[in-house]
Amino acid sequence: MENIKYELVPVGEVIAGEEGYFLKIKSEYISGLMEIEGFSHLQIFWWCHYNDNPSARSTLNCKTPYKAAPDNIGVFATRSPYRPNPIALTAVMVLAIDHDKGMIKVSYIDAENGTPIIDIKPYHPSCDRIRNVSVPDWCSSWPQWYEDSATFDWGSVFRF
Amino acid sequence: MENIKYELVPVGEVIAGEEGYFLKIKSEYISGLMEIEGFSHLQIFWWCHYNDNPSARSTLNCKTPYKAAPDNIGVFATRSPYRPNPIALTAVMVLAIDHDKGMIKVSYIDAENGTPIIDIKPYHPSCDRIRNVSVPDWCSSWPQWYEDSATFDWGSVFRF
Repeated sequence: MENIKYELVPVGEVIAGEEGYFLKIKSEYISGLMEIEGFSHLQIFWWCHYNDNPSARSTLNCKTPYKAAPDNIGVFATRSPYRPNPIALTAVMVLAIDHDKGMIKVSYIDAENGTPIIDIKPYHPSCDRIRNVSVPDWCSSWPQWYEDSATFDWGSVFRF
Repeated sequence: MENIKYELVPVGEVIAGEEGYFLKIKSEYISGLMEIEGFSHLQIFWWCHYNDNPSARSTLNCKTPYKAAPDNIGVFATRSPYRPNPIALTAVMVLAIDHDKGMIKVSYIDAENGTPIIDIKPYHPSCDRIRNVSVPDWCSSWPQWYEDSATFDWGSVFRF
């Protein structure tokens, strides 16, 4: 497997501004959205383009910004954008879809305006929603549900 | 954004055989697993290497194998491996971790022996577990939980 590389292409980008959060799909990929209605949530795969550099991509350990977290933690135990392949995953709630324009309005996504989107999949409870899940002590006080994260006081778990 | 491409590198591979399912991390990336203990489940990002070809990657619509599904559906409304960027995502339950060997034993993963792994993230209920989720009618009879998928009669929802 030495020196193998795979290629990704952007299929769209995040639009984040005064009018809210949108996923803008490039015209040549819009047909891939057919029949996406009915899925209340989508899994958005985006590219951490600000961290696509040799330094960030050679990061294997980091200090997290969270209280009580280990001083040194492996990137595969975090969602850090500093990692060998800077892919991010965010579940989003769909508000509206405009197939003509290739625009999906979502409630929120933790990506900046202009961030490349590399894939979209439906959120299926049958494979994405785990009933019995546990996390380490240092993050066990975090919300147990996606919905509760919106109102959680994240400042209370940060070191600073 | 025209003609931009991003590069991925494999960080490990799936081992699937008589002894079960394992994620084998390449020696140079093992340190990224530090402190991963305590997460009962992980999100595994893998590369559909059998579908990394121009034909599969130009597929935008497909016929699903499921009864009652639309005749023609966009790939972004499916988990099909035929898609512009053939990334797959599977949540797995961790059974054991051997840091020296870089081996994570998991209960199951729907990837073949030798499949490249491109990323690992912890499954966090705060961002991955959605309480109020809905899906289209054609898949609304599928399990509502990850755990129930193991015993669900998937044959009953296939066309053939």
